[in-house]
Amino acid sequence: MGLFTKDIATLDDLFVHTLQDIYYAENQITKALPKMIDKATDAQLRKGFETHLKETEGQIARLERVFEMHGSKAKAVTCPAIDGIIKEANELAGDIADKKVLDAALIAAAQAVEHYEITRYGTLIAWAKELGRADCASVLQETLDEEKATDDKLTKMAESKVNQKAEAATA
Amino acid sequence: MGLFTKDIATLDDLFVHTLQDIYYAENQITKALPKMIDKATDAQLRKGFETHLKETEGQIARLERVFEMHGSKAKAVTCPAIDGIIKEANELAGDIADKKVLDAALIAAAQAVEHYEITRYGTLIAWAKELGRADCASVLQETLDEEKATDDKLTKMAESKVNQKAEAATA
Repeated sequence: MGLFTKDIATLDDLFVHTLQDIYYAENQITKALPKMIDKATDAQLRKGFETHLKETEGQIARLERVFEMHGSKAKAVTCPAIDGIIKEANELAGDIADKKVLDAALIAAAQAVEHYEITRYGTLIAWAKELGRADCASVLQETLDEEKATDDKLTKMAESKVNQKAEAATA
Repeated sequence: MGLFTKDIATLDDLFVHTLQDIYYAENQITKALPKMIDKATDAQLRKGFETHLKETEGQIARLERVFEMHGSKAKAVTCPAIDGIIKEANELAGDIADKKVLDAALIAAAQAVEHYEITRYGTLIAWAKELGRADCASVLQETLDEEKATDDKLTKMAESKVNQKAEAATA
């Protein structure tokens, strides 16, 4: 983004910019997830992160499809939001000794990532529809549905097991 | 957080740390919202941000109540996630010339903030319940309900009016 020029003139420009933002974010997430897999102790949680890594790769491919449908080149712009969310997750993980408490923190971190994606895809879908691009909206909706399902799975894993193990280990 | 010590030993420590994180975040939001009010053009959007500023002040008071109920001192720890989300919003706003496109971007930015709060309060409530602190969970739930209602209001405002105005202004 230019410091002295205002590069975003239309809602369509804003749509493309936000696509580039989430394209960067998804790529950062593919780098962050392997580290989260390494840190996780609970087998189901590790498996959940592994599944989500594969899903994220599919979501990147879907974004590339949306760029192409729109007639734009797939490009990433730095997204300070996801950088901050990942930085916070790493700092926090480094501060936790107990493996079961760490699992609870990893779920919370993953849900912060999911919610960032949920809000951005929700916005992108609304803008795509407003721009008359129901085709782009429909592809983005597939990803939004996946993100919401992942968030729900993480909530269930936390509430049914991981939080209890963290509490029992350290109470 | 210490670089060489692992300060978080228990789920209760993690709960308090995350309270401190969202306490910092809410305080940053009270500084960011007046700037968003200044930038917004749509009267209903400005009013929505003004209402949310008052709500945020109430949410800070509620967090102080939870700290007290828990027997901890209200304290903030730097939260790189909210710093990143706010930084991104400011950078983007500086890149948009058209006032109506800016309104659409401001809603998207506010929803990213809401979703960060939704995920953190959701986690805090689950941990409070696990820790046998239904009293803390119940106070935090009041805020979570407010955040979700604000997010819904923003979605409706975007889809019913603000996005259309942005598209009509620049198509």
